[in-house]
Amino acid sequence: MMAVPDKMMAAFLMAPGKLEVKEAATPSPGPEDVLIRVEACALCGTDVSLIDKPLPGQPPYGEFIPGHEYAGTVMQAGSSVDEIGDGDRVTVEAHLGCMRCSNCRRGNYTACLNYGNLKRGHRANGFTTNGGYAQYVVNHINTVYKVNDQVSLDEAALVTNLGCVLYGYETLGGFIVGDQVMVIGPGPLGLISAKVAQALCAEKVYLVGTRESRLEIGRKIGAGRIINLNQEDPLEVIMSETGGRGVDIVIESSGSESGLNLAIKATKRMGKILLLGFPHQPIPADFEELALNNKVLFTVRGEGWANVGRGVSLLQQGRVDLKPLITHSFNLIEIEKAFETFINRIDGAIKVLVKPNSVQA
Amino acid sequence: MMAVPDKMMAAFLMAPGKLEVKEAATPSPGPEDVLIRVEACALCGTDVSLIDKPLPGQPPYGEFIPGHEYAGTVMQAGSSVDEIGDGDRVTVEAHLGCMRCSNCRRGNYTACLNYGNLKRGHRANGFTTNGGYAQYVVNHINTVYKVNDQVSLDEAALVTNLGCVLYGYETLGGFIVGDQVMVIGPGPLGLISAKVAQALCAEKVYLVGTRESRLEIGRKIGAGRIINLNQEDPLEVIMSETGGRGVDIVIESSGSESGLNLAIKATKRMGKILLLGFPHQPIPADFEELALNNKVLFTVRGEGWANVGRGVSLLQQGRVDLKPLITHSFNLIEIEKAFETFINRIDGAIKVLVKPNSVQA
Amino acid sequence: MMAVPDKMMAAFLMAPGKLEVKEAATPSPGPEDVLIRVEACALCGTDVSLIDKPLPGQPPYGEFIPGHEYAGTVMQAGSSVDEIGDGDRVTVEAHLGCMRCSNCRRGNYTACLNYGNLKRGHRANGFTTNGGYAQYVVNHINTVYKVNDQVSLDEAALVTNLGCVLYGYETLGGFIVGDQVMVIGPGPLGLISAKVAQALCAEKVYLVGTRESRLEIGRKIGAGRIINLNQEDPLEVIMSETGGRGVDIVIESSGSESGLNLAIKATKRMGKILLLGFPHQPIPADFEELALNNKVLFTVRGEGWANVGRGVSLLQQGRVDLKPLITHSFNLIEIEKAFETFINRIDGAIKVLVKPNSVQA
Amino acid sequence: MMAVPDKMMAAFLMAPGKLEVKEAATPSPGPEDVLIRVEACALCGTDVSLIDKPLPGQPPYGEFIPGHEYAGTVMQAGSSVDEIGDGDRVTVEAHLGCMRCSNCRRGNYTACLNYGNLKRGHRANGFTTNGGYAQYVVNHINTVYKVNDQVSLDEAALVTNLGCVLYGYETLGGFIVGDQVMVIGPGPLGLISAKVAQALCAEKVYLVGTRESRLEIGRKIGAGRIINLNQEDPLEVIMSETGGRGVDIVIESSGSESGLNLAIKATKRMGKILLLGFPHQPIPADFEELALNNKVLFTVRGEGWANVGRGVSLLQQGRVDLKPLITHSFNLIEIEKAFETFINRIDGAIKVLVKPNSVQA
Repeated sequence: MMAVPDKMMAAFLMAPGKLEVKEAATPSPGPEDVLIRVEACALCGTDVSLIDKPLPGQPPYGEFIPGHEYAGTVMQAGSSVDEIGDGDRVTVEAHLGCMRCSNCRRGNYTACLNYGNLKRGHRANGFTTNGGYAQYVVNHINTVYKVNDQVSLDEAALVTNLGCVLYGYETLGGFIVGDQVMVIGPGPLGLISAKVAQALCAEKVYLVGTRESRLEIGRKIGAGRIINLNQEDPLEVIMSETGGRGVDIVIESSGSESGLNLAIKATKRMGKILLLGFPHQPIPADFEELALNNKVLFTVRGEGWANVGRGVSLLQQGRVDLKPLITHSFNLIEIEKAFETFINRIDGAIKVLVKPNSVQA
Repeated sequence: MMAVPDKMMAAFLMAPGKLEVKEAATPSPGPEDVLIRVEACALCGTDVSLIDKPLPGQPPYGEFIPGHEYAGTVMQAGSSVDEIGDGDRVTVEAHLGCMRCSNCRRGNYTACLNYGNLKRGHRANGFTTNGGYAQYVVNHINTVYKVNDQVSLDEAALVTNLGCVLYGYETLGGFIVGDQVMVIGPGPLGLISAKVAQALCAEKVYLVGTRESRLEIGRKIGAGRIINLNQEDPLEVIMSETGGRGVDIVIESSGSESGLNLAIKATKRMGKILLLGFPHQPIPADFEELALNNKVLFTVRGEGWANVGRGVSLLQQGRVDLKPLITHSFNLIEIEKAFETFINRIDGAIKVLVKPNSVQA
Repeated sequence: MMAVPDKMMAAFLMAPGKLEVKEAATPSPGPEDVLIRVEACALCGTDVSLIDKPLPGQPPYGEFIPGHEYAGTVMQAGSSVDEIGDGDRVTVEAHLGCMRCSNCRRGNYTACLNYGNLKRGHRANGFTTNGGYAQYVVNHINTVYKVNDQVSLDEAALVTNLGCVLYGYETLGGFIVGDQVMVIGPGPLGLISAKVAQALCAEKVYLVGTRESRLEIGRKIGAGRIINLNQEDPLEVIMSETGGRGVDIVIESSGSESGLNLAIKATKRMGKILLLGFPHQPIPADFEELALNNKVLFTVRGEGWANVGRGVSLLQQGRVDLKPLITHSFNLIEIEKAFETFINRIDGAIKVLVKPNSVQA
Repeated sequence: MMAVPDKMMAAFLMAPGKLEVKEAATPSPGPEDVLIRVEACALCGTDVSLIDKPLPGQPPYGEFIPGHEYAGTVMQAGSSVDEIGDGDRVTVEAHLGCMRCSNCRRGNYTACLNYGNLKRGHRANGFTTNGGYAQYVVNHINTVYKVNDQVSLDEAALVTNLGCVLYGYETLGGFIVGDQVMVIGPGPLGLISAKVAQALCAEKVYLVGTRESRLEIGRKIGAGRIINLNQEDPLEVIMSETGGRGVDIVIESSGSESGLNLAIKATKRMGKILLLGFPHQPIPADFEELALNNKVLFTVRGEGWANVGRGVSLLQQGRVDLKPLITHSFNLIEIEKAFETFINRIDGAIKVLVKPNSVQA
């Protein structure tokens, strides 16, 4: 067992919009857990939301450490854990299902029917239990994946995003060789979606957005056809380049009303739409177009079906490279500056890391 | 070969809203077709729509005979047809795919990418080619199903509806033993959906509507829990009776904004929604609820994957009885009265038949 | 909490072929467990095997209580258990996966990769942990299902078989409306398979066997076509009655070489075969017939994907009746006589029960 | 329309084992067909079989031109064909389903229930209708795929093999990111299977065989772990390198008894086996191992679900390169020498081409 201090530094949510880095007791792993020394924790749009306004099941102010995209080193393993040992480099996923409800038992643990019910065993680090904006964090063995030396822990901290995208493709069937895929919205999930579509041998990947700098990144990672909404009508482009048929698959990650309705229109008959982003308010959508053409609208919650493991494999194989998305790094005590940079996309910020064990600025 | 007259009577669409019964040449079957003497053709809501306003691919006024839900007797078979012969009692489905586009080749012929393209082989009787409001009609062998003597041709004329519902259940996975199923909207498709859910061993079938007479029919055919919107809040009922979990499956067949949003809310995490009905205008919907809970929204076009065959089997087995839905019958020359009865639900009309070979009133 | 004595009677496996009923400490439930007072435990062919020769992971002689098909009443619930409470009538499934290997996490817990690894959390009552030939038994909450008053606990003790059959049908796709299904071997699983096929609206169910008394039971429960191997050639019957096409689905539950090869031959192109029984030694099979015709050979281990829950629903709905399969009941102290009756099919024995809480003969 | 001579040269099967190149009338395309000038036709093991002994549905000696893996240029298009035009470079698939049986209608046209029934529309060029060892051949539009200029017609002639392998992966689910895949047998289909597994982002591809030269090709195309049966025990290697778990997927393409039983043993619990090769006689297999571990045995007939189109996409994207498999080319009049080279693997022959329009040696 490696030496672990009794106390650690961590960023607690004290009130809406208010994170405070302070000292706390280092947590202890239970029989099925490991204790991880966090190397890097990536900021996510959901962090911004829950810091602003609590999500269901969120612990009280003053007791809650957010952060759900992180990687680090195993320091201690619980009594039943022998799959993973001290010193192993690992990344994580957020969702630990209760593993006893009807959804979990059938493998759908990110849609656990006991979400937020700690007594029955559900945990979601960074949502309902403490997360990665801390020097140390406890994870259940189900949520931990080994990472080999060819992948940096900074990059590994982003693998949750990749797991989510892969879960999305698996939800759609997963076999997209030769398909036409359109991705709407070049945020982190959109860019990763475009890259994964290319990695899985889609025939052509369309990427739709407005921000030229992000579209340019998309071009580099394998989107064969960039559509800048300021310059072209995306539906016209799709129909023209697919012979009026539409694309096989749309990944909607803009979360906008126009994005969703573009998705509905640009999909071929019997095509599939995946919502990675979604509007936070009800918006009008053309269900007749959907129904008359036998299109299906899929959603994904989290990074289900252990797809973080598939994501780690893609990184280790060098098939996907998440490093270009990491634009900024901050020490833990700079966490507010990190959020400011992320929220306002300062200096072209895409993914921003906090490094909890580099406390001194 | 049975004797077939050169001339027949048929109801032609002459102008918006105007059907005219007149004499026409009896059509001839091609090599892969059969000629059917129509015993009964059922009115459908889509007929009402297309009589009012042409659908894409609809033939010109004066040349088009609508009607897509019918049954009758085979009078002639094309040169390649030996699966079915003269005198066979048959029912039909509307959609003949081109069988050469990428959708048809993978079995998704109701979502044919060559819809309305007669040259490439697509046909949809009653939509893009002539249908069943006629004494005789030509059907491709793919769209014809034998019916045994235990099923009346009147009942057989409704099997398209059953095929559509079964296609819906197959789209959802089809294995619903022990599931909780909610059906919204007790129209013909809704009532049949409730009956089929019960036949496939769903644990409990909820049927939601306002019209007491129709809900009562639902109760008789196997809906275990009737929810009259005028008396109870359906979401409260569902949550109360499923322990706050929601139902496994929702069949939305009301086509209303409230129905769709009830569907989205009442489905459990990871649950499935099927749109059998849909609003004809864009309507606001809560996609956040859908996405945060990993729910999927399925649609069906027509009666795909040869589910009319499964429907015929259910009728022949006596597992589903469509006769209670048949409330009225008219001769062909009374077709306008038939539509008036159907549209205005006169005398509790649900399904209304036209009998083309009983021309004399 | 209900009163539970410190000591109980149970049948321990002392040596190959030797069961001994003796006193033992009543077990205590852990935090995620319940303690069940066993009403009835059904004998299974696998019991016969493991009593004769230990299976992998089986506890040492003198410490092991077999029995995996049982039902009873909850006496105590572990600290985290609030889904189920004292006095609830319950039935069980054997397999508790570790819930942390890659198979369990994706819902395939009966194929747990940590089978027999108690440290990592796997348990299989009656196989690797103590089972139901005892007055009391401990079950993890995942393996317990409530049963309503309309189902006797004797019948509920057989629900594992039904869960296994349902898992098989779900593995095949589960939507068999209008299909032709052949069941080979009228043992308990075969008879239940025939009944379930009928319940799920198969068009026609063929049941193949030699024992007239069992075939007669098959006829009563819904097999529409009985084929006695002593009187008819089953392949000829199938080909004759399916127009030379073969059946859509074969359930092979004879476990014989001839049964397996009949299954391979009698299935239609693109058809599906499910092995419920299987030979214990390698046997010759015609893989060319399988491959040239694109047939698939499925297997099932246990009663996966929580299908015991679906089975309970079928019993509660009255859609399946397992009572006719229960031919004999014995007190616990008569367990050797119970096995003798079961093994030698004395007096037409099909399923034989042991009643642990009726110790006095 | 391009100029096509009335007469052509073609290799007819005159008797068992006897091909004769002679003059014949150039065929004419029907309304849904195209006429193709054959550039290259690849020899396949099935050709060897059917030349030796007729397959079911094969035309009489003296009238039958074999050859089913070919590519060429469209010379004429039937009256309904506007998807493809004169001068288009195309490749083909063998199977045209009847498109009216229940299998074809659901997309399973390579398992057509009317196989060999020309009247009902089934055709399989090179099997039941004339094939590609001819200067010209007629193909139904369903069996023709355009190929762009980046792919040579020689390479395109092999795409049927790629379509078959892709159909196999799609049958298995198709989403193999991060999976462990073992391929047994480094023949053409085995080598392509290894390459496709790598292209679809499998974590590790094991290739098992004996012939060092072919294993070496496997290594070059992406098999990360070569197992030469003469040097290592493959089951030991697999168990050692997967932590005793077994691989997720086995592609068996050796067609041998030992290969099949290795496949059954080396697959993990709940794993999948695909038979690309198969023994021509019944062989003993361990079904207990299969059943106790919930493994599934899949087969594929031909290159179904339009996977030749996906194969063309992989070639055009440069993701798979079939050129290294082409070891020899012959003129049509040298066809017997071509078969001799192929059968005896002279000079390391893997895939051997015949070039029908280079008649003069």
